[in-house]
Amino acid sequence: MDDNCIFCKIAKGEIPCHKVYEDNEVLAFLDLSQTTIGHTLVIPKEHYPNFLSTPQNVMHHVMDVAQRVGQAQMTELLARGVNILSNVGEVAGQSIAHFHVHVIPRYASGDGLRITMLDNEKRKDLNLPVLAEKIAGGIK
Amino acid sequence: MDDNCIFCKIAKGEIPCHKVYEDNEVLAFLDLSQTTIGHTLVIPKEHYPNFLSTPQNVMHHVMDVAQRVGQAQMTELLARGVNILSNVGEVAGQSIAHFHVHVIPRYASGDGLRITMLDNEKRKDLNLPVLAEKIAGGIK
Repeated sequence: MDDNCIFCKIAKGEIPCHKVYEDNEVLAFLDLSQTTIGHTLVIPKEHYPNFLSTPQNVMHHVMDVAQRVGQAQMTELLARGVNILSNVGEVAGQSIAHFHVHVIPRYASGDGLRITMLDNEKRKDLNLPVLAEKIAGGIK
Repeated sequence: MDDNCIFCKIAKGEIPCHKVYEDNEVLAFLDLSQTTIGHTLVIPKEHYPNFLSTPQNVMHHVMDVAQRVGQAQMTELLARGVNILSNVGEVAGQSIAHFHVHVIPRYASGDGLRITMLDNEKRKDLNLPVLAEKIAGGIK
């Protein structure tokens, strides 16, 4: 637990939330920003900084709940799709340093998430075989 | 397998890719769109339409590889963060109906992914407790 972490406080019930799901290790609740209607966060109750630093068994449990929440958004909110998103690092949009997965129901294109592509000029200069090899070389 | 699925063809080696990682069940390769430099896709070799319809054990394996690819992007490409993203449904930006996870390395804010929030006017009208209960009621 991290004493200053708002998600640890929510997990301990010290700060209220609009709960969607709870078991011994995982909690799901509405994101107050509501990127789209029903936007839910799934977190482990234990404190891990982000997706990359969370032990596999805990990460699997969080992802299982994200799957079930997404399925419920489809049936209960009549969402036509969902985005499953976890941001790692401030530069990637992570604002709370406690691993969380966004489950964002989608009703229409452009209602929530937008991905900006690299422009063609920049893409042209990439050496993809070298790039793939570089990442491959770092996989543990 | 789906005869018309491009990711099934890549998994079978019928269409080439810039491979980042491979084992018996999972393949990771560069996304040709390169939203940011090093943007990688992780897929199960078996055909499942999306994150919500993929069996848990397969989904866990894909997520484990996504974690390892993200870690490699941090060390090898000096990314400062990553986005882990899986889109379900065309409305959510899924263009290939074969479960895949985007691992998008981030170098600077605004270089890849943007999340558009619901405007305040709409958010004001939401009844969050009712909304949370509605989703909770659909969780299986």
